[in-house]
Amino acid sequence: MRPIQWSGGKLRLLDQTALPQQEIYLEISDYREAVHAIKTLQVRGAPAIGIAAGYGIMLGAQSIKTSSMKAFNKELEQILNDFAASRPTAVNLFWTINRMRRALSTAESQEEAVNALEKEARLIHRQQSAAMAKLSRIGSSLIGRECTVLTHCNTGQLATGVEYGTALGVIKAAAEQGKKISVYADETRPLLQGARLTTWELQQLKIPVTLITDGMAGHFISRGKIACVIVGADRIAANGDTANKIGTYSVAVLARENGIPFYVAAPLSSIDVSIDSGARIPIEERGREEVLEFNGRRIAPLKVRVANPAFDITPHRYITAIVTEKGIVRPPYKRNLKSTFQEVR
Amino acid sequence: MRPIQWSGGKLRLLDQTALPQQEIYLEISDYREAVHAIKTLQVRGAPAIGIAAGYGIMLGAQSIKTSSMKAFNKELEQILNDFAASRPTAVNLFWTINRMRRALSTAESQEEAVNALEKEARLIHRQQSAAMAKLSRIGSSLIGRECTVLTHCNTGQLATGVEYGTALGVIKAAAEQGKKISVYADETRPLLQGARLTTWELQQLKIPVTLITDGMAGHFISRGKIACVIVGADRIAANGDTANKIGTYSVAVLARENGIPFYVAAPLSSIDVSIDSGARIPIEERGREEVLEFNGRRIAPLKVRVANPAFDITPHRYITAIVTEKGIVRPPYKRNLKSTFQEVR
Repeated sequence: MRPIQWSGGKLRLLDQTALPQQEIYLEISDYREAVHAIKTLQVRGAPAIGIAAGYGIMLGAQSIKTSSMKAFNKELEQILNDFAASRPTAVNLFWTINRMRRALSTAESQEEAVNALEKEARLIHRQQSAAMAKLSRIGSSLIGRECTVLTHCNTGQLATGVEYGTALGVIKAAAEQGKKISVYADETRPLLQGARLTTWELQQLKIPVTLITDGMAGHFISRGKIACVIVGADRIAANGDTANKIGTYSVAVLARENGIPFYVAAPLSSIDVSIDSGARIPIEERGREEVLEFNGRRIAPLKVRVANPAFDITPHRYITAIVTEKGIVRPPYKRNLKSTFQEVR
Repeated sequence: MRPIQWSGGKLRLLDQTALPQQEIYLEISDYREAVHAIKTLQVRGAPAIGIAAGYGIMLGAQSIKTSSMKAFNKELEQILNDFAASRPTAVNLFWTINRMRRALSTAESQEEAVNALEKEARLIHRQQSAAMAKLSRIGSSLIGRECTVLTHCNTGQLATGVEYGTALGVIKAAAEQGKKISVYADETRPLLQGARLTTWELQQLKIPVTLITDGMAGHFISRGKIACVIVGADRIAANGDTANKIGTYSVAVLARENGIPFYVAAPLSSIDVSIDSGARIPIEERGREEVLEFNGRRIAPLKVRVANPAFDITPHRYITAIVTEKGIVRPPYKRNLKSTFQEVR
């Protein structure tokens, strides 16, 4: 499975909204289709959004029809803004936008700029692939030789667009080492990424998975069925506060209440050292239909008020460790995340 | 709305599986249809199951074709067993069965027995109606003059079959007193009683309601949007441990973690003083389709393993108070529930 591909000047994306019923690849040559794919969750998962946005920006740059660099830069800025406005929470999107902006800073023609952007998009893809493989291997040391892990949402190849996921990457790496892992997967309402995507990926990996509704997680944790919880992240603040799919905070509280570890697995591209705490992470509010309807069928009365925050913030005090490609970071996060970043430079 | 009616020797039940799209009343004259209605959740909610079972047992007794009391009693015992096997967790069912069994103990003919059973079924219905009205009024004292309450599953008229619900009865009574209440309703997967039924009932009562998915409850509690949580119960053990719809335990932990009260509202018919703790409450495991499908449409890959416990146990230490028709019971529950029952005698 290669959910994000770049070939022949086109971006191919496995449409995650059609899974698991249908495996449809979208062929994208217009950057607006890439923006649309991010907005509508055809491509989703913080690292995957970051990678897809790189190629999407390059497609946008290529499509600009102008002869002056000034006009080109102005139009490109608008394209970067379109991507920035597509989804607010996952920081990987902004990380990519910043990298792309830097990559073209020395370009003297549109051709040079487009070449630099394509090179940078491919580099991001390659680097993220290596980062996810590394963090998966590093994180696997946290997983027992025979244990049951609970996860929320989808954090596998679909969410990263590369060979290893984040939380599911850690699980995959542990299984590859011969550890006997089984997984409880929260279905993850409203959009059911757990039911639709995580079960599907784990079946392909031949890792036993039990699908549960989100409200069942606490029951199984309290009954001692779960050794640890591992999830991904959409954005981690400098103090370790973590934005992730709505419902994550609840699982973190339940894990601590029952004395089991709660791990976050995320590449450095998901860590936003520019903000000091989770209070400054914007939480995307999505449309009411996602809660009110399923597959086009209404589940609630007309005119009912709905809230649909797509993410929540798990305060750092609930997080046992954060797994990155540079090692396992433990509290105090403010100091230890900072030093992890300093080593990188 | 009268979700349980008895007239002309027939039991009329508002089919809760068809709501809110359709309001269909089932006309039941065969006890097996009543058993089926309980099993399939056409009638659901612990108090409502208790009331419906009373009439269902009476219909069963009426249908027995025999001239000897011995044969009658034997056949009736089988009918009682059919009801007892329909759903294991809600104790109201067993409370009704015990009352019906006692009611016919002095009957000397089938006619006498059937008359005694009809009288008892009607008495249960009347008494439960009074109990729910009383506990609603009593519980309303716990609700602030202007506040937002979170609830899980459905505990209104549909769940009790009478004019007041349990947790929603408390909310209704508070609103009737002029308090400005608004409600956050968990959708309550897998069967969406919150999305389908609670929102529908609250709309009819003109009480503002916001529908959320189960994973969002913690987010809103942690952000200070919720003043208290109030839920119903399917069975409360002598120590206060409470079985209620799956997901309740998680909400209770989140309430305590964030320092807001967590109340249980239930009539004495839901309290099982014969068992010392929640560990002895049987948890019903329901069919996999309920999780695998959403409104009749499949949401996960074929052959995925599923768990579907219909209830969980909230340990008494998370419960701020239990509202009954005999007053508000506070910890220590073992002593205080016992004395509540002793006053009743």
